[in-house]
Order: sequence, then C-alpha cells, then structure tokens
Amino acid sequence: MSQSPNRHLSQSAQVDTASVQPFPRSEKIYVTGSSVDIRVPMRQISLSDTPTEFGGEANAAVRVYDTSGPYTDPQASVDVRRGLADLRSGWIEARGDTVLLDGANSHFTRERLSDPALAPLRFHHQRTPRRARTGKNVSQMHYARQGIITPEMEYIAIRENMALAQARELGVLDKQHGGNDFGAAIPAEITPEFVRSEVARGRAIIPANINHPELEPMIIGRNFLVKINGNIGNSALTSSIEEEVEKLTWGTRWGADTIMDLSTGKNIHETREWIIRNSHVPIGTVPIYQALEKVNGVAEDLTWEIFRDTLIEQAEQGVDYFTIHAGVLLRYVPMTAKRVTGIVSRGGSIMAKWCLAHHQENFLYTHFEDICEIMKAYDVSFSLGDGLRPGSIADANDEAQFGELETLGELTKIAWQHDVQVMIEGPGHVPMHMIKENMDKQLACCDEAPFYTLGPLTTDIAPGYDHITSGIGAAMIGWYGCAMLCYVTPKEHLGLPNKDDVKEGIITYKIAAHAADLAKGHPGAQLRDDALSKARFEFRWEDQFNLGLDPDTARAYHDETLPKESAKVAHFCSMCGPKFCSMKISQEVRDYAAAQGSPDTGEQVVRMLDVEAEMQEKAREFRETGSELYHKV
Amino acid sequence: MSQSPNRHLSQSAQVDTASVQPFPRSEKIYVTGSSVDIRVPMRQISLSDTPTEFGGEANAAVRVYDTSGPYTDPQASVDVRRGLADLRSGWIEARGDTVLLDGANSHFTRERLSDPALAPLRFHHQRTPRRARTGKNVSQMHYARQGIITPEMEYIAIRENMALAQARELGVLDKQHGGNDFGAAIPAEITPEFVRSEVARGRAIIPANINHPELEPMIIGRNFLVKINGNIGNSALTSSIEEEVEKLTWGTRWGADTIMDLSTGKNIHETREWIIRNSHVPIGTVPIYQALEKVNGVAEDLTWEIFRDTLIEQAEQGVDYFTIHAGVLLRYVPMTAKRVTGIVSRGGSIMAKWCLAHHQENFLYTHFEDICEIMKAYDVSFSLGDGLRPGSIADANDEAQFGELETLGELTKIAWQHDVQVMIEGPGHVPMHMIKENMDKQLACCDEAPFYTLGPLTTDIAPGYDHITSGIGAAMIGWYGCAMLCYVTPKEHLGLPNKDDVKEGIITYKIAAHAADLAKGHPGAQLRDDALSKARFEFRWEDQFNLGLDPDTARAYHDETLPKESAKVAHFCSMCGPKFCSMKISQEVRDYAAAQGSPDTGEQVVRMLDVEAEMQEKAREFRETGSELYHKV
Repeated sequence: MSQSPNRHLSQSAQVDTASVQPFPRSEKIYVTGSSVDIRVPMRQISLSDTPTEFGGEANAAVRVYDTSGPYTDPQASVDVRRGLADLRSGWIEARGDTVLLDGANSHFTRERLSDPALAPLRFHHQRTPRRARTGKNVSQMHYARQGIITPEMEYIAIRENMALAQARELGVLDKQHGGNDFGAAIPAEITPEFVRSEVARGRAIIPANINHPELEPMIIGRNFLVKINGNIGNSALTSSIEEEVEKLTWGTRWGADTIMDLSTGKNIHETREWIIRNSHVPIGTVPIYQALEKVNGVAEDLTWEIFRDTLIEQAEQGVDYFTIHAGVLLRYVPMTAKRVTGIVSRGGSIMAKWCLAHHQENFLYTHFEDICEIMKAYDVSFSLGDGLRPGSIADANDEAQFGELETLGELTKIAWQHDVQVMIEGPGHVPMHMIKENMDKQLACCDEAPFYTLGPLTTDIAPGYDHITSGIGAAMIGWYGCAMLCYVTPKEHLGLPNKDDVKEGIITYKIAAHAADLAKGHPGAQLRDDALSKARFEFRWEDQFNLGLDPDTARAYHDETLPKESAKVAHFCSMCGPKFCSMKISQEVRDYAAAQGSPDTGEQVVRMLDVEAEMQEKAREFRETGSELYHKV
Repeated sequence: MSQSPNRHLSQSAQVDTASVQPFPRSEKIYVTGSSVDIRVPMRQISLSDTPTEFGGEANAAVRVYDTSGPYTDPQASVDVRRGLADLRSGWIEARGDTVLLDGANSHFTRERLSDPALAPLRFHHQRTPRRARTGKNVSQMHYARQGIITPEMEYIAIRENMALAQARELGVLDKQHGGNDFGAAIPAEITPEFVRSEVARGRAIIPANINHPELEPMIIGRNFLVKINGNIGNSALTSSIEEEVEKLTWGTRWGADTIMDLSTGKNIHETREWIIRNSHVPIGTVPIYQALEKVNGVAEDLTWEIFRDTLIEQAEQGVDYFTIHAGVLLRYVPMTAKRVTGIVSRGGSIMAKWCLAHHQENFLYTHFEDICEIMKAYDVSFSLGDGLRPGSIADANDEAQFGELETLGELTKIAWQHDVQVMIEGPGHVPMHMIKENMDKQLACCDEAPFYTLGPLTTDIAPGYDHITSGIGAAMIGWYGCAMLCYVTPKEHLGLPNKDDVKEGIITYKIAAHAADLAKGHPGAQLRDDALSKARFEFRWEDQFNLGLDPDTARAYHDETLPKESAKVAHFCSMCGPKFCSMKISQEVRDYAAAQGSPDTGEQVVRMLDVEAEMQEKAREFRETGSELYHKV
C-alpha cells in the first residue's frame, strides 16, 4: 500500500490493530515501587493445571519482561495522533535542574514548524522542549555519580530483578545451571543501588532523554539482561510515516528493547516526532544521516554548525541515544582501501569522504567535547559508531576496525569526564572463532562500557537468511558480554524490511539474547524455559504456545498438522502419533522409579491403565479423521 | 493434498519439478578421478565481470559442494519409478567379496513382496540384494585397515578437496582467516590416502551400504567439511510415499548430505524402498521404529529375533546407517525419573520401556556383537543413538546423558574390533556454555569417532523457531568438532514439516555447518564468502544472489523493494538509496588511497565523474518510479 504524502496524518493516523491485541492468557500487571508513580509493567502468563495423570498440581503463572508498552494494556487508551501518556515528567521536574524552553533551539526545527506545507504530515501534540538549566548536567550518570538513586533506576531494578524474584518465590532459583559469565559481575539481586553503581561506573547506561517522558526506563549493561534493538526507518525510495510507527509498535510487541530510527528520506524530522511521541522504548538515531540531507547529500558540504543544529533538533524532540562516528579518523581511512568490502557503515563512509575531501580530521572527533555538552543538557547517550566495522568475513578484526575501537575507548573516557553515558557499537561480519577477540578488546579498550553489536554475521553466503547467520554470532557475543544486540532481518543486504521481516528479526534476536542470558547464568533466566518444557512434557499444548516467544506461530504450526481443538488436549502429538509417544513412556519410567521407592516422584504415580485407555480413544479418533489431517503447504 | 493409498505409484509417481530446476547460472560439472567411472559432481557458478568503474576484471567461476545429485543434471534422465542410475556396483563387484542373493534374507521382506495388496504401493524396479561372502567384511573401515584405497575414498578426496584446490588455483588459499580447530587434524590437502587413514582410525565414516549403489560417496568426520542431515518420514497420522520422495529430492537440493527416513506409519517398508532407490545420498533409519510396528506398538513384545530380521530387511534394501539405541542401559533409566522432560528420544523410550517391563538389560546391548556381524556383511554404519539425550535445557549434561555416552564409547571400541564404522549421536537441548563439555566428553569417551548432534537447542522458549534456537548450538558444536548436524525445522515440537519447513531447516543448518567450517579454518572454505562479498561490494546483484545458499529467496527479497530489472545493475540498493551509498564512498576511498601511491589499488582507479553521472541518472529514474516501488506484504 503506497500512501499519498498529503493524507492528513493528524486526523487519520491509527494504531496498528495487530499491535494492540492481548497476548493469549496474558495479563498486564504493574509492580509498584517506593512511590505510586513507579509502576513497572510485566506480562503475566497464566498456566493450566498439570493433568491429573501427571500429578494434577497447579502451575504458577510466569512473569516475563514486557517491552510491549501501553499498547497491550487494555486499560490504556491509545491514540497515535495524541501520543503516549507522560510517565516521567514528574520525576524530571522534581529534580529541579531543567527548564521548559520558549521554543525549539534548533533553526531547522523552527523552519519546519513554520512551513505550512508540512501541516498534513505534522504530529499535532508536540511537547514543549526541555533543557538542563545553565551549568547543570541532567544525565543519569551524573546523578549516579552524586550517589542519587533516580526513579528511573528504581524502576529498572524492579524490572531487571523480576525473574530472579519470581524464581526465589517459587523456590527454584538454585535449580538452574550455573552459567559462565566470563568475568561479568552479575549480582545475587538487582537492587536500585546496584543499578546506580553500574551507571556511575559506566558499565551500564539508561538511555532516557528528558524530552522523552513517555519512556519506560530500561538499562543496557553487561550485568543486566541482554537487550535487543530493532531498526526501522524509511529510505529515499519507500515507505510512509504511518508505516514506521506501525513497525515501532510491532517491533516492541515482539521484544525490541530499543528502536533506532534510521530514516534517510525526506520528512525525517516529522517522521521522528511521530515515532518518539508514540514510543515507550528508547529511540536511537544517526544524526549524520539527517545532516547529510540538509546539505543535499554532498558529504563535503557538511559542517560542524549544521551537525550541531541537528543534534539540538533531535535532542529536543527526545532522541535517547545518538550514533556518533567520531572514531573514523583520517589515518584509519586508507587502511580500508584493500578490504574486500571497504567501508560499509553509512555514517562511516560519510565521515571518511568528508575527511578525504577536506584532508582534515573528522569534525565529530575534533568537536567531541562540544557534543558532550549537548548530550548532558538533555541526557542523550552516546552510541559511539563503528564506522569502520567489517562488511565481510574477509575484513573482520582488521587494523582499521581495531584502530577505530581504540579511539572509541579514548572517547569513552572523555565522555565519562563529562558524566555522559556511552555505549560502543561493534561489528558486523565476524567468523565464530574471531568473535571473542572483539568482545575482549572492547572490554579492555573501553573499560567495560556497554558493547552494542550488529550481529555479527558468521558467514556471508546466505543472503535472505542473515537474521540466522547473525543470530548465531549475536548469541555468542551476548554470552561473552555484549550488552545489546542490534537485530538483522531476513532482508539485510537485499531490501527494506516489512512487518513480517521485523517480527522475524526481533524473534531471532530475542532467542539470541535469551540464550546468552542462560549461558551467562543470569539468575532466574531459566524459569521460562523450565515452565515451557514442563508444559511440553505434560502435553499442556496451550501453555507451551503461550509461554513461547511467539504464541501465534506456534499455535498455527500445530494446527497445520492437527487442526482439531481436541488435539490441544491430546496426550500425544503429530510427530509420533499415539503409539510411539516417548513422553508417555517417560511417565511410565517415573512410575517405575516411584515404585522403586524414589520419594520425589511418588506423588506422580498414575493409574497407567486409565492413561492407556484414554490414548486408545484418542488414537481411534485420530485414525478416523486421519484423511482430513494433512494440509499440504 | 491427501492421496489415495490405492494410487498405483509404479505408474503414476513423478519427480518433483521444483527439485530438478537448474540453479541460476550454474553448471553441473564432473571431475574425473583415476578411472573414468569416478566422476565427482560439483556445481560451478559463473560470475559476471566486475563493472568497469570498479576495475573491470573477470571473476573466476566458483565451485560449490553439490549434494543435489542427478536431479540437477540436465544430462541425467530422472524417473522416480525406475530409480537412479547405478554408480557403484562395478566397484563393489570388482572387490570380489560379495554375492548376489537369490532373494531377500528377511522373512518380513518376503512377506511384503508376496502380498498382492501392496502392488499399488510397491517400487517395481527393486535391485537384487547383495551380501558379503561368508567370512568377508565389506566395510569401508575394513578395507581402510587393510591399506586399500577404495574408489569411494578417492571420490570423496576429490569432493572434499574441491574448495582447497580451487583456492590454490586462484592463489587465495592463504588469504582466509586461520581458524581455531580445537585440536582437529585438518590436513593441508585432502588426499585419498588421508581419507583412508581417517576411516581406518575411526575418525571418519563413509556410510555406503553395498545395496545402495546409487550413492554418491561422502564422508562424515571432524577433519572434513561439516555435514548436515535432514529428517523425513511419514507418521501414523499424515503424508504419503510420494511426498516423502519429494522431501528427499527437495532436501538434498538445498544441501542435505544425508537423509534419515523416520517413518513410523504403515507401509514403512515400501516407503523406504522408494526413498533408497531414488537417493544419491546416504539414508539412515531407526530400525526399532519398524520393529515396534511389527509388534503392534507394544514395546514389551519386542524381541531380538524381530529386531534382527528388521536389520536384515533394511540392510538388504540399502540403508546406509542405523540408529541403534544400545546405550540405554537398565541402570540409567531411573536416572531420568526426576528430569523435567524425562526421556524424549522415541528409540530411547521404547528401549527403556522394554528394559523396565522385562527387568533385563537392553537387548541391543547384549546382542551388540551380533549386530556388528550384520553391519559388516552389508557395510551399514552405526549411528549409536543417544536415547537419553536431554529434552530441555534443565536436563542438559546430566548423569543419565553422560552415563549413556560412556557406554557408547565402550560400544564404539567393540564395533571397531569388528571393523564396523561408527558415529555417535548427541543432544538435544543444551545452553551455550554447556555445549563444549558435550563435545569434549564425546571425543574423550569415543576416541574421536564422529559426533552427530541434533542441534543442540540453546533455549526452550521459542516453539516455531527451533531451527534458530538449535542453529546457534549446531554452529557452535560444529566448530568445536561435531562432524554432522541433524537439522531441526521450524515445526519441531509442533508438527510434521512440509516442504517449506524442510528447506528452512536445511538452509539454517547449511549456514551452521559453513560457519563452523570457517571457524575451524577449513582450507578454502572462505572462498565462497569472499566471492559473494566482492560481488556485493561491486553491486553485482545477480552474482550475489547466485552465490548464496538460496538464490531464489535472495532475488525475491530484492525484487520486493526494487522489482525492476534495471535495479539488478544499479550501483546502489534500496537500503540507502543512491545518495547515501557507502559502497560508492568506499570506492572513492580506494581512489584516494591509489592516488596516494598504493600500488595494489592503482588499477582500480576509476573516473568518478562518470560514476557520479550514472548515479544521478539512476537516482532520477528511481525517483520517477518511486511510487510504484513499495509493496506491502
């Protein structure tokens, strides 16, 4: 569907109905912190009782980390034309270190606001921009270093501690595997004080611009749950504003912890306003993309002044983190000449071109402290861009990449002198055996500032499947200590992702992040795996679907082979049919063990004859309907 | 499509047309060995020249390992009713150690052949079964230990050495990353003698039943390319014989190195005959499934005699490897009682039930040497089953699993005393940090006999995406030394895979296997990555698609955003559009470096003004057609 650019969005834009469906048997709950305005959202999945023949016990509901925001809250009224409710302004105002501005400080913003031709595209409920009072630093890192625990930190502690608290409540905390965290410092409990200390130390960041009060606070750091980012954004060639908002709500529904808006087409400013006002997750951008638009795509014409105005423009809209390619130094650029794929980062190539054209050092590097001044006035976090990341297996871990990484380490320390939050972007394309070197070098160069990698892709030979080539690398680097994984969709290298691709990319990366949490031994992480596996063993099909990352797909796949509702309670599945069921035989083993006097399984003794009889009945039923069961796709 | 069981397959069955399409710009070539009947198939992908503005050089065709068999050879006449041509009978006869039988030795086979009701299902061009002469051992391991290099070994050496030979020819062998092979012994060149020595040592197997002369020989071992297996097979509930043959041809088209027929429904015998007669790859089975059918699904009624007849039945049909769950010992069974998911292997649970019912040791264990006698009379390889593998993250690496693995190690040594080839099956569900322990323990217990794992799945929380949860684990264990990876499809735990699922599973596992080859530093493995990445950098879109594992999907994804044919030669893509193209800027960097006097890139200097002009033209063209370009899915 291609939309007319003249449709009046402020009248017509609607929330994507697929993004506001409740999850099956799930309830949105809020855990309240030390004050009533600290309400931390969670999704609670109710489970059925274990069937009587397996013991008949009740199964506790499982709480899962919820990135889906107000969109899945039936109590919340959602209207994308008005944007989300304000959660944080009270906290921000209470700190007393900010002022509301009379108007935008950015020239560009003022130009756009005064252009009547943009009215149909414009978001009509813009917020008044806020800025730090003169001489004040409003970054979470600054507060943390003053010893202040902000409401954001407390919110995050409750959110991050959820699985652990639940596992302790259920008495299963010690039942999960130990993990290997490669020297991380995951605590026995995530407290507000721990959150504060990690932010103060620079080992974690809370991307939370004071102009993005709709935000549900979250944290990115090696000692917390591994996070994932989803990219959206239109390009010069395709897609509309409403579709980008739809990708935002859709991506966070399936698990995106942050969203980067990588738009490069026209109307970037207006698109971003719609996105931020409707986003409960941190929004990241690459400001150089828009700056380049402002000079008609001629990299040589970029100036610090234009870039600076772009930073202010975006900071006052509420962008939470900026990718800044300040490590692309003139001396590194020729190192890429012999690469198979040269420079593949857009921002990196823009800055490389600028450096070469002027034969001057990268202005993002020379103005780095000026940038820090802007960042701390709004609490925008740095995502120091890896403009020289490898674009192919051949180019992995070369001198250009690692040279830039060392420079990013220097810049990290400068940002920290300003109490500005920093994470570091990483590759890219890296064969498995060279991934750990990336992580180790990043930890060493950047003093454990959070690492944020794109994949990495572990082979180049599968265009169309790069969510998978990179999901492998992402899981591994997440295990090794990477704090956030930037997703890759099946369309990578080929085209722009549609909604299906966004979902496929998000689910793949949710798998990678969770596999990493398990391998690190993150306390409580295994709870969901165990609940799902128990449901699987007990043929609680609905519970198995609902505990999964994507209940809809799981249910649909099951229905393809066994569409009848009765199959959802059948004590066997389509793979083996009733006679060969290994789960059934396992139950007999339990009975045997119980008969041998094993105390723990005694309660689970079942009358096998009853089960056998039921099986026979189901088997007969399935035989009779067998001819209808196969659906060729 | 549900098919009538009474359709006369011998008259109506047809090859799947999708499986015999030529791959784009690919040619089937054969490399001839020391005699004219050793003709090793490869797929050669032709590439375009580099565009003049990038240097204009010719790009050598790339040869890739070809599992697709005669189905993609336009010279081969394929008729699934007749089966494939005989490649190996000459070699087998020349060894002079086998006899053609008057008829099948299996009672069951004779019964089935004499049942007129089965005529419509029957494959009508059965081969006369062959067996070792009395006292002879016809296993490839036996020959290897006599110092004999068989034609199969020479064939394999040419096949395995292909990428290395090509990289050497192109002078790029030393350009790939070194890899970390964790103590494997990958040689500088794969020679027939090396193949022989690895088989003699037990570190590799060549599954090649003398009754499967249609087979294109391949090898499974840690010092060779990592292989993948695809499972097919109907169940009691669904699917027909013709569909299973279709999955075979479809699965091998996309890269399956072996196929396991896991059928459990009726007519297993006839289904298998169709599969083997049409299979150019080794076929594996789990004979206990069929044995259980013969006793109407009552595990307690299984006997050694029924099982023995099943082994002979299947060996005389040509099955190349048997999964035998001989390590499920009585004493291990109660160890599974406290597991979250008990016993999840079908074969394992059948044997556990038998052991418990009779309170006797597993007859596969007590008759192990009897089984060896059968294996060596036909050259069937053992795939020693992991009947106690974990079915959930919670159950990984427990005492039941590792106890069984130790027993499999003992059995390996017994099989080797008989010169019978062995590989070892492995899990299952294992969090990332516990995967290497599996590999290391297997290498130690089983003296480096090839490991063959199902995944492992690295988390339980994503039903519907278990190809991905397990692809992560598969890539890692392949890197650590696993020789073959058994695929998992998106339908795992939910239903039976259809053709789309088979393809998705195969491609995912091809990615995992190749990522492992790269990480191990398998010589020449990086050639395809480098060729594809070079094509990507130079905007040779067609070459990029064609070098990928799935050209069709890559092309389709590209077309979704930029459907016009002109986009295939555009020097930019839909992600950035013409103005922001980082590849273009990288080329300018090369020019800059060249201008600085770097000798290697001097030839690549291009007239940038010309390129700019072309870009502008393309950009204009795309702007004009922009409104048609977006296709919402």
